Amino acid sequence: MERNLLLTPGPSLVPFLIRETQAQEIIHHRTKEFREILGKVNLGLKYVFCTRNPVLILSSSGTGAMEASVSNFLSAKDTVIIVEGGKFGERWKEIALKYNLEVISYKIEWGSAPEAGYIKDLLDNHEEVKAVFTTLCETSTATVYDIESIAKVTKDRDILLVVDAISGLGQDKLLTDEWGVDIVVSGSQKGFMLPPGLGFLSISDKARDFMNHSSLPRYYFDLGKALKSYEKNDTPFTPAISLITGLEVALNLIKREGLKERWEKFCKFAKAVRAAAKALGLNPFSQWPSVSVTAVVSPEKIKSSELVKHLRNKYGVSIAAGQADFKDKIFRIAHMGAIEEQDLVVGFYFLEKALKDLGYKVKAGVSVQKIEEILSEGVK
Amino acid sequence: MERNLLLTPGPSLVPFLIRETQAQEIIHHRTKEFREILGKVNLGLKYVFCTRNPVLILSSSGTGAMEASVSNFLSAKDTVIIVEGGKFGERWKEIALKYNLEVISYKIEWGSAPEAGYIKDLLDNHEEVKAVFTTLCETSTATVYDIESIAKVTKDRDILLVVDAISGLGQDKLLTDEWGVDIVVSGSQKGFMLPPGLGFLSISDKARDFMNHSSLPRYYFDLGKALKSYEKNDTPFTPAISLITGLEVALNLIKREGLKERWEKFCKFAKAVRAAAKALGLNPFSQWPSVSVTAVVSPEKIKSSELVKHLRNKYGVSIAAGQADFKDKIFRIAHMGAIEEQDLVVGFYFLEKALKDLGYKVKAGVSVQKIEEILSEGVK
Repeated sequence: MERNLLLTPGPSLVPFLIRETQAQEIIHHRTKEFREILGKVNLGLKYVFCTRNPVLILSSSGTGAMEASVSNFLSAKDTVIIVEGGKFGERWKEIALKYNLEVISYKIEWGSAPEAGYIKDLLDNHEEVKAVFTTLCETSTATVYDIESIAKVTKDRDILLVVDAISGLGQDKLLTDEWGVDIVVSGSQKGFMLPPGLGFLSISDKARDFMNHSSLPRYYFDLGKALKSYEKNDTPFTPAISLITGLEVALNLIKREGLKERWEKFCKFAKAVRAAAKALGLNPFSQWPSVSVTAVVSPEKIKSSELVKHLRNKYGVSIAAGQADFKDKIFRIAHMGAIEEQDLVVGFYFLEKALKDLGYKVKAGVSVQKIEEILSEGVK
Repeated sequence: MERNLLLTPGPSLVPFLIRETQAQEIIHHRTKEFREILGKVNLGLKYVFCTRNPVLILSSSGTGAMEASVSNFLSAKDTVIIVEGGKFGERWKEIALKYNLEVISYKIEWGSAPEAGYIKDLLDNHEEVKAVFTTLCETSTATVYDIESIAKVTKDRDILLVVDAISGLGQDKLLTDEWGVDIVVSGSQKGFMLPPGLGFLSISDKARDFMNHSSLPRYYFDLGKALKSYEKNDTPFTPAISLITGLEVALNLIKREGLKERWEKFCKFAKAVRAAAKALGLNPFSQWPSVSVTAVVSPEKIKSSELVKHLRNKYGVSIAAGQADFKDKIFRIAHMGAIEEQDLVVGFYFLEKALKDLGYKVKAGVSVQKIEEILSEGVK
């Protein structure tokens, strides 16, 4: 009997309660029944996004929602600041360049986080800037960015702050309205515990003003059209119905546990995972470790990509290697969505074995023990 | 016990064999296991699209794939011919205008089909034309267009023929390579028997040449990027994994029955549905009725939108009303994907009752009898 455990930072575990909704008979989307589901889902999304503004659902990956938050709010030749500290910061830049925006790149070392003060200086020196694009949890480095501080330097200017929270939302704290974030982007397959296929984005009033002056082409991702449908609990095109049906259940699970309680739980999980890695003599990679995923520096003689492969093939545990230059140097373990403490225990149990197989010296049980110690302090 | 029957032209019935795959544990997309699925799915799609060329999978509705087939092959100010004979022809025009293309609109009456000769004349008179955009089955009017004849006038010119086959593919015959269609667009929720959330498009060599000269902005729908991943049975962004897992099963079901056999079966179904409507004293709407869906003119005193509502609310049978000007004038019954003869029987059984409820004179059983008569002639 093959047993698999998914500890990758997306797709992440989909609980059976949600998966079973995916086997239900399909319902038509232009019905009262489906509009009622959309109505509930729209409310639930506001809760998780911590906003009173609309959160739109796109039938696409999170990247589609990232593109929409460029193409709907800006025009060619507009200048934007992009924080580039990993693969997903780079994605912002790639999208911006495709749309002929002028990009001021704030490059930071992988594993480090941007400084709000530096962004402030950039803004002071470049009055032409229209938007700042950054990330809540830079998945490629497992680093959380201080969005609260960045928002402090953007919110009183006539510019937009756009945050990719695809992997972070639901674990890494993000107070969209309170901090003053204009657009928050997310996706279904991480904190929302669903299969991939939905993108989400919240839109502030300021962002809606920008939308009126944007002249970039878009059709499928036309958010003006989507907002009109949204008011009627409808969608402009046939949506991914089954995923939205599952989303209703996912949002109920999140609400039942409580968003704040979940932030605290995952914070504890992240702490336990870092301590477990240290107990194995391994170091966390990131200077500002995220609450959603932990990156660990692989032992010197073991390529992380090999470790990941071995762990998956021999023990059925999926974690992620690094990306780009860090492909063979770090491995990443997710603690997001539906992942619970027993998953971390099983993950580290087999990680110990896999490390041993590859010639790394491990005292059996040392990392699992550490997880138990830290999580015994109480997980709500 | 509530029982529902979905006879709408998308979303269409999803068989249990496919739905149960949606409840399986999610697998990671950057694995050998998933690449094997993609490899099989890529072959299966070629079979259904009748092409040796790549058929790309996009995680979006069919409309996303429509947009991709504009934004990847043309440049601003390019001139295109668009056949406008219903809501989906209009959609081509809306997309083309968003991208600042020059549109020559070939407007035809709703329910009629375009003439290849007229397109030939347009092409002879407008050497600047770069592409012709049209539809296999115009879902809004249930009309099939003669793509074979249109392809005859386009294939030897340096222009692209782009066909929206979202609702038609799998039922209405389309020989992509043999006829010479450059781009065929489809979606998951009709002939493919899946929930909505995937778009497909096939790309001819000629289209790939056009791609090299296109300068419209695109990122999520960048097909050049998608083609590079395609060669490795991969995707550029996280795909809608569960739907692709279901697609493997759907394609096996189609292959097992045979595409040609299915064309013939649905042809018979369409004939039976038209005859059943006539037996009720009602007329088919379209001059060139599609094999995927039938539009019927509603009795004079009954608004079709009311009939559709009554049929759904009282009898649990979902069919579709008309769109735009024909909202209250026609109703549409699908025979696509997983729909079988028993579904048509149940559909007409309740349609008779619903018509009677609304004051229309019906001799009980007359339409069901007609279906049985016609389908007794043998359905393979």
